[in-house]
Amino acid sequence: MGYFRKNIEGLEGYVPGFQPSETDVIKINTNENPYPPSPSVMKALRNISEENLRRYPEPLADTFREAAAGVLGVGPGNIICTNGGDDLLTICFRAFCDRNSAAAYPVQTYSLYPVLARLQDCKVIEVPFDEEFSLPEGLADAGAGLTIVCNPNAPNGSFINVDELGALAGKLSGVLLVDEAYVDFAKDNCIRLVEDFDNVIILRSMSKGYSLAGLRFGFGIAREELIAGLMKVKDSYNVDAVALAAATAAIKDQEYFRSNIEKIVSERTRLTDALGKLGFGVPNSETNFVMAQCNQCDAGQIYEKLAQRNIYVRYWDSSHLKDKLRITIGTVEQNDKLIEALKEIMPQ
Amino acid sequence: MGYFRKNIEGLEGYVPGFQPSETDVIKINTNENPYPPSPSVMKALRNISEENLRRYPEPLADTFREAAAGVLGVGPGNIICTNGGDDLLTICFRAFCDRNSAAAYPVQTYSLYPVLARLQDCKVIEVPFDEEFSLPEGLADAGAGLTIVCNPNAPNGSFINVDELGALAGKLSGVLLVDEAYVDFAKDNCIRLVEDFDNVIILRSMSKGYSLAGLRFGFGIAREELIAGLMKVKDSYNVDAVALAAATAAIKDQEYFRSNIEKIVSERTRLTDALGKLGFGVPNSETNFVMAQCNQCDAGQIYEKLAQRNIYVRYWDSSHLKDKLRITIGTVEQNDKLIEALKEIMPQ
Repeated sequence: MGYFRKNIEGLEGYVPGFQPSETDVIKINTNENPYPPSPSVMKALRNISEENLRRYPEPLADTFREAAAGVLGVGPGNIICTNGGDDLLTICFRAFCDRNSAAAYPVQTYSLYPVLARLQDCKVIEVPFDEEFSLPEGLADAGAGLTIVCNPNAPNGSFINVDELGALAGKLSGVLLVDEAYVDFAKDNCIRLVEDFDNVIILRSMSKGYSLAGLRFGFGIAREELIAGLMKVKDSYNVDAVALAAATAAIKDQEYFRSNIEKIVSERTRLTDALGKLGFGVPNSETNFVMAQCNQCDAGQIYEKLAQRNIYVRYWDSSHLKDKLRITIGTVEQNDKLIEALKEIMPQ
Repeated sequence: MGYFRKNIEGLEGYVPGFQPSETDVIKINTNENPYPPSPSVMKALRNISEENLRRYPEPLADTFREAAAGVLGVGPGNIICTNGGDDLLTICFRAFCDRNSAAAYPVQTYSLYPVLARLQDCKVIEVPFDEEFSLPEGLADAGAGLTIVCNPNAPNGSFINVDELGALAGKLSGVLLVDEAYVDFAKDNCIRLVEDFDNVIILRSMSKGYSLAGLRFGFGIAREELIAGLMKVKDSYNVDAVALAAATAAIKDQEYFRSNIEKIVSERTRLTDALGKLGFGVPNSETNFVMAQCNQCDAGQIYEKLAQRNIYVRYWDSSHLKDKLRITIGTVEQNDKLIEALKEIMPQ
């Protein structure tokens, strides 16, 4: 057809995980939180008025910025609200990358980064992780305009210490974006780097820790100067009035949030142990999922057999991942059913 | 600071209209619909479950695509759903424009286009309208990858006949995006061009005609091949589950929609006449706003005096617009109050 830019004509596009329309399935394939959002979210939703819908929303989502600033110990001016974390990723690629300014990140990692790079038509520098998923030394010298570290990392759940990421930020001439979409389940986080470095952006998501994947609400944390520049790139009203009200209610209910996180972290330990006993290699995860490596089994086959039982996990038929299954931590009951099913399926 | 791309460092950014937080004002400055959304929208909102929020939404918003296809007489595959109409504009600039592929549009028009062009760092070809706001001949020969015609046009409300836009589409080597954000209030629309031309994209918005500005829901209509390409550029989950449910309910209630449109179109005639009698020059508008030109008054002063009375209209202090006020059509009561206020304010 030829109407599209060349970089887009040839692009495959990002493939989101399967979203079954049925609700009576065990859906542990796209890292949703198994617990419902805070009751105060449902209350906020019930309180949405016709006037909230009829009028344009707050352009900068200040209500959320103020609530989140209080919880996180930063200023409202340090926060940009986005239509899911992916919107912030898109904004950063558009803000920092072009043909003269590369994007760099360790691999394997979140498979959206190369798609966004291709859309932006910028150079990409992919630096392989070692087997321990340590921070690769090559990143500091790559000369990228935007360096992204997904921490904890997807799809394996590994975690790089905050001090190491601070040292990296200090060496870079460009921006360091720490994608903390899964950090609510981790032992530490990088917010304190924003005080020390003017080139650090932290990405957060309300999808996982706050059970709001359906709502599309993420945000970035950085120095005010960086936030002001990102504001110019975002769509004028990128966050809608309903999402704004619901996300604000969610982040204010820290007690409910922490209680859910504790349950998931505890189940993560139990599931890691159980999968290990079934013969999988399961590295420690600091997220709400685990990566289970088949040592003597066929991951694709196990994926199919689980799906036949209405249990959906994530499987990628690609060279680095085809011997692995990524499994979201479910409720106690869901994890029990998964373990039982695997006991029947796994070769003895 | 130097972290941003040069085209972004120097950018002023788009300035959205003033959004007062008070609700006891007459807000006729950002072209919202003065009537509430359909009762079925509120019902859909009340029916949102915890599960809708917890899970990721439909990646392609198929529920809306099917409902809208039925209403508009196209196929679901001819529709892409976006986070407001602005999201579709951003997607189109990213899909079709770069340093070698320009964006072209007549001016004056929607002031977001040059901002998006600057963000994309593409060449811009602005072709001035004549005094009648006819389609400028220079557009066809501009050689742009993306040509945009806002029809009806903002901020003046003029309308170009569909046949003329069809003739333009036939001459272009690139894509023609017809921005129909305001078309629900117009005498005709360009959907039928999608049948005849493989390079036409129609932009629609639920913000104005359907009273859902707070929700951020727009969509594009084009041939399936074009839609498939645009899908690769959009964020994976660009439309949230709540907006999807509410927008679907809204577009299904065509009876409510049409009744609101009739009221606004009727008030547009009345307001146009009344403003004319007050000495303004008011061209015919095919939108939900009118542009009132001060012949013997100071538009900036009138804007201030109206604001003092809690009546907010839109005023731009720029060379082409500083003698004009853009006034959204309100309810009968709001329009009455505006006319009364202007009678007091206007120089005798």
